[in-house]
Amino acid sequence: MKKHVVIVGGGFAGINAAKVLGNKPDIEITIIDRKNYHLFQPLLYQVAMAALGEGDIAAPLRNMLANYRNITVFKGIVRSVDIEKKTIVTDFREITYDYLILACGVQHHYFGNNQWEEFAPGLKTLAQAKEIRRRVMEAYERAERTTDFVERKKLLTFIIVGGGPTGVELAGSIGEMSRYTLSKFYRNIDPKLTRIFIVEAAPRILGSFSPDLASKATRSLEKLGVQVWTNSMVSNVDENGVQIGNERIEAATVLWAAGVTATGIGKTMDVDTDRIGRIIVDEDLSIPQHPEIFVGGDLANFQLEDGRTLPGLAPVALQQGRAIGKNILLDLKGRTRKLFRYRDKGQMATIGKNKAIVEFGSLKFDGILAWFTWLLVHIYFLTSFRHRVFVLLQWGWSYFTFSYGARLIVNREWRFYPEACSSSSVNDEEE
Amino acid sequence: MKKHVVIVGGGFAGINAAKVLGNKPDIEITIIDRKNYHLFQPLLYQVAMAALGEGDIAAPLRNMLANYRNITVFKGIVRSVDIEKKTIVTDFREITYDYLILACGVQHHYFGNNQWEEFAPGLKTLAQAKEIRRRVMEAYERAERTTDFVERKKLLTFIIVGGGPTGVELAGSIGEMSRYTLSKFYRNIDPKLTRIFIVEAAPRILGSFSPDLASKATRSLEKLGVQVWTNSMVSNVDENGVQIGNERIEAATVLWAAGVTATGIGKTMDVDTDRIGRIIVDEDLSIPQHPEIFVGGDLANFQLEDGRTLPGLAPVALQQGRAIGKNILLDLKGRTRKLFRYRDKGQMATIGKNKAIVEFGSLKFDGILAWFTWLLVHIYFLTSFRHRVFVLLQWGWSYFTFSYGARLIVNREWRFYPEACSSSSVNDEEE
Repeated sequence: MKKHVVIVGGGFAGINAAKVLGNKPDIEITIIDRKNYHLFQPLLYQVAMAALGEGDIAAPLRNMLANYRNITVFKGIVRSVDIEKKTIVTDFREITYDYLILACGVQHHYFGNNQWEEFAPGLKTLAQAKEIRRRVMEAYERAERTTDFVERKKLLTFIIVGGGPTGVELAGSIGEMSRYTLSKFYRNIDPKLTRIFIVEAAPRILGSFSPDLASKATRSLEKLGVQVWTNSMVSNVDENGVQIGNERIEAATVLWAAGVTATGIGKTMDVDTDRIGRIIVDEDLSIPQHPEIFVGGDLANFQLEDGRTLPGLAPVALQQGRAIGKNILLDLKGRTRKLFRYRDKGQMATIGKNKAIVEFGSLKFDGILAWFTWLLVHIYFLTSFRHRVFVLLQWGWSYFTFSYGARLIVNREWRFYPEACSSSSVNDEEE
Repeated sequence: MKKHVVIVGGGFAGINAAKVLGNKPDIEITIIDRKNYHLFQPLLYQVAMAALGEGDIAAPLRNMLANYRNITVFKGIVRSVDIEKKTIVTDFREITYDYLILACGVQHHYFGNNQWEEFAPGLKTLAQAKEIRRRVMEAYERAERTTDFVERKKLLTFIIVGGGPTGVELAGSIGEMSRYTLSKFYRNIDPKLTRIFIVEAAPRILGSFSPDLASKATRSLEKLGVQVWTNSMVSNVDENGVQIGNERIEAATVLWAAGVTATGIGKTMDVDTDRIGRIIVDEDLSIPQHPEIFVGGDLANFQLEDGRTLPGLAPVALQQGRAIGKNILLDLKGRTRKLFRYRDKGQMATIGKNKAIVEFGSLKFDGILAWFTWLLVHIYFLTSFRHRVFVLLQWGWSYFTFSYGARLIVNREWRFYPEACSSSSVNDEEE
């Protein structure tokens, strides 16, 4: 009798568990994701900044897993888990499992202020990356055509809430683009005057890095025109800007790179979760009392001996996915599971051309060497050979020509006749 | 006193007029487009079919025109033209012109049935190409997960309304993709059973080509599994399919490649337009009685001596744009304008790998030679060197590996919290 393994989520954890279990005897695998693709999230900010296209960092799950004949991929939404019946409820069907791997990650959250999302998109999906690109480029378009100087200043102000790696990478990209690339394209504005802020609640940015590297990153950001505000808690976000206690900045574009919260699946099960909804796992990555359910990646709260939990990084998810797959194989062979041990791959962040920071145990470095390390590591871990070739080509092109990818503003609305009742439409004027 | 030339539309006509006038003395140019980019429309169907990315066939107008210091680009919507005041009304400001070049093209239309758009998107913009990609790929996703055979058949049925080059290229792409590429990615369906129809009201498809080439194209389509229905007038389109007189086909995906209508700008002026709203121009491409207003590209109705009008093709628009620019320069030098003469560049359409038809005067050919001609011509006319390199690389890759671009389904909706009032959301389950 074949065992049915259901994997929820096609991120680093899910895909690596699937690869370990793929084409193994006596196993059927179903992987479900609300998207039809695996996303290489570490480079998502480059899609937001138009340095790369969406196809450069994402690949359909079906293509990636096509050669594993025992894997079925469904695009669908998992609504809840019934632990007793060993069944998941999806938006198309109930599916019964022998083993369940939950790896559906985290999403950004607004500390109870979901109404801020409209004014401050986060960066977790391709759709959001495209929305951020649209907003940033639209702000420059509007600044170019307005004759109102106050309005123009607001349009040329960008606030990034959150000083983690994503916030730093977004701010650095906008800084570099405005200082080095955009100037020659506009006639009425000077893009070099763009105001860019990182607003961080903690005493410093890049809290997971050592203080000296974070300090170097701050200096690099400042050289690109980014102002770093620490100890600054956002108290309100609206369509015209951000309130920080008694201070206020007017900005047409606010980007959210602050909090994350686990996806809601943990709440549908009677399991222990932490403050941000992550599911607490045992040392073998299964849920206490439920050896048939594993959790991996950002959704898992894996506690270390010193009380800290593993951070939400790609290498953690990747290693956990593999470990889960191997533990299921051990089960089927009747052998004892292995406890998960994270092999620290360090961490890195890039600020701009030739500028990055790398921390690997006690080894810390920055500058052009760190930037090349960052570049090589990201190319190496990209999803496929094709992705590697095309990303490298585009980076090489941009590096040597100083010209970046196409900063297109593609409308979300595709209709010409959004109101079918009227014979002509607001979109009539131009193609 | 400098002359102010206002160009409405950044397509082939607008951009080529701008290039002729760029950096010329005593001229200021303003070019306005509702998009921020120039689109290489002949390859738009390849974006819809995920063979190319949006950045491969589009470039920001600002980048393309950056080196012409007398050109200002505005992203905006032109609402109307006041011929007496020599002013255009936009969504941001009124702008006065000495010369006006109208080149804002055509859009698809539904013969008075705009409510069909929801069920049958056209293909004129990048947003529509992405919508078509989303629908086609989503249909396969849903077919894979349904257990209802009638539903599955409907999901695996694609109807293309209109048998012009765009309709043929769309149908051929779906045929090729379903017969040669998709099979190994699905477990529950056989994509080779995809039903594809071209529904054409005229007695044959590709009416602008010679009958023998059109017939060869029909045979090529049939070999890819496409059924061609001629003399078939669509009488209704709804969410479940298409009605053609007494016949009905159930289809989850209907694509519209039938009629076009000129953008509405002609209606805002007291000028002569033809049946589909195109503005009638004199032999120098200006409007009768208004030598300061030129019309070029798809929006222009330019009548030939034999009573036919020039078709809406890229080479026509390109040549007209250049001719308009030159006539303005002749004006400024006090010389006589030149009458426009179209140098026929022929026409071509591609059906699939190694399959195309080319017609150039009395020279007609098809098969692999036509396909290579099609390929070289399209690469040659692409917007920039960068575009040429990257498109050629991707085509080469696809040709030799049989793997096509990333068939991603990127949601239009970017929000996690679309209803800000609720604390959790429908999107909670997964990242």
